[in-house]
Amino acid sequence: MLLTLDLVGIFVFAISGGLVAVRNQLDIVGVVVLAMATGLGGGVIRDVVIGAVPPPAVADWRYLLVPVVAGLVTFRLHPAVGRLEGVIRLFDTFGLGLFCVAGALKAQELGLGPAPAAALGMVTGVGGGIIRDLLAGRIPVIFRHGELYAIPALAGAALAATLAELGVAHAVILAPAAAVTIGWRLLADRRGWRAPVPRLGPPSS
Amino acid sequence: MLLTLDLVGIFVFAISGGLVAVRNQLDIVGVVVLAMATGLGGGVIRDVVIGAVPPPAVADWRYLLVPVVAGLVTFRLHPAVGRLEGVIRLFDTFGLGLFCVAGALKAQELGLGPAPAAALGMVTGVGGGIIRDLLAGRIPVIFRHGELYAIPALAGAALAATLAELGVAHAVILAPAAAVTIGWRLLADRRGWRAPVPRLGPPSS
Amino acid sequence: MLLTLDLVGIFVFAISGGLVAVRNQLDIVGVVVLAMATGLGGGVIRDVVIGAVPPPAVADWRYLLVPVVAGLVTFRLHPAVGRLEGVIRLFDTFGLGLFCVAGALKAQELGLGPAPAAALGMVTGVGGGIIRDLLAGRIPVIFRHGELYAIPALAGAALAATLAELGVAHAVILAPAAAVTIGWRLLADRRGWRAPVPRLGPPSS
Repeated sequence: MLLTLDLVGIFVFAISGGLVAVRNQLDIVGVVVLAMATGLGGGVIRDVVIGAVPPPAVADWRYLLVPVVAGLVTFRLHPAVGRLEGVIRLFDTFGLGLFCVAGALKAQELGLGPAPAAALGMVTGVGGGIIRDLLAGRIPVIFRHGELYAIPALAGAALAATLAELGVAHAVILAPAAAVTIGWRLLADRRGWRAPVPRLGPPSS
Repeated sequence: MLLTLDLVGIFVFAISGGLVAVRNQLDIVGVVVLAMATGLGGGVIRDVVIGAVPPPAVADWRYLLVPVVAGLVTFRLHPAVGRLEGVIRLFDTFGLGLFCVAGALKAQELGLGPAPAAALGMVTGVGGGIIRDLLAGRIPVIFRHGELYAIPALAGAALAATLAELGVAHAVILAPAAAVTIGWRLLADRRGWRAPVPRLGPPSS
Repeated sequence: MLLTLDLVGIFVFAISGGLVAVRNQLDIVGVVVLAMATGLGGGVIRDVVIGAVPPPAVADWRYLLVPVVAGLVTFRLHPAVGRLEGVIRLFDTFGLGLFCVAGALKAQELGLGPAPAAALGMVTGVGGGIIRDLLAGRIPVIFRHGELYAIPALAGAALAATLAELGVAHAVILAPAAAVTIGWRLLADRRGWRAPVPRLGPPSS
């Protein structure tokens, strides 16, 4: 069940990587590699940092196959995939909620305290997109537009890490913690909430 | 013997990193760091991901010295080095064949299945160039021009991983698997074969 | 004592990351993430490469809190922070000296020889700034302007690694080795010393 959810999340993230590659006119290698990096990158960073190597995302062929298929599908059918952007966006929000909570719980299980586990949960959710944007030659979107993406991810991961620290069973934590991330994202989208940007001051250098 | 081949591969990769740095008008630090990152980056990523730390590329001073020398030579003699581009390109092809096969075998030895070992073999071969391009502020070339580079690397790595899985001795695998990568690259260059790029469809966003 | 010095170094590095983010008009997520990446990135790379995982910079909440605070302070007070650039630059030089020496000693302690330990010490000092620049979409400044930054860092790290190899106590090594890095930087700044850039030759490709 969790494996299936995980693979669905990877598939959706990978499609977003493939679409960025297609729109940058990359070739098939670029499309597939960006799909893989976006789908697997966050989890691989987390696992390398906490010493859980080799990461399942590398050692298990199912984790490799899913983003490759997503990349090839995007390569071949990108106009149709592009028209589904609303649906993909929705799935991406669910993937984010799942990844950041699962990432926080995995870090907590391996002995990290709640603050580091929350941070690594957020990294699991947003790391793939950061790598995607670096490989595509652009400043990561999550840093730029004030869109509420990383902050809801951190909130869900922090809730999960805190509950796990208090001894709540992981199976009980997953749904409500992911719901915090997902609900905040959906509400922010609908109501136009934004993260703050620096006030313009007098020129400072 | 393998060590020598490995160091020659690192030297040639490092020169390609140094040349990119010189052409971007970087200073001597940039030239040497790009040479090191290009020569050693793929192997270091592979070793960190499979948990073979510290990587020989970091722990063994010979692996550090070779790309530093390559960087300094490129810094000092770049017009001459640049005129040798045809020769360097040929050596680079041989380095690619060697690296992706050796990378796949090392991953397989550490217990990974054939698909992950093949993927990590390809990463060993192409990872340095990707880091080089990111540090030089450009989208990795292997994603852009449809040049057949990563795909032959994956083919050689996949053949090596499959044969190793079947129990064939590593010493027997090296030459034919590397020959697949090298031969495909050379043929593709001569005949102008290209990897596909996305078909332009109707605007998709 | 060392912990305090370390946290001060992280704070100052993090401010430089936050200022780059503010000047690139990133939002609060970008400012805080760049602050964290700049303050912690060098140490995390070193620890991952030598297998000291999870890195203290991730596992210890104090290491996470300091750059977050630095990022938020920079976000809120960036005009004032920007006016302090001379002071920040001075602290940054001290942070560099401390980080590259401490990094080299940690690598040496974990069994690396003097050349690898020196290289990893330099990476500890300059790695955060490289990640900062990649995330901000620019070629790392330490590669570009011939400013003497990485070379003094390497010199201090190399001295520390050599003395440690000879059996000198770490407590004795720290101050003189850091002084080499710091003194060289300060002198270079004052006297306008620059690292060499490639001579322009005839067009080479």
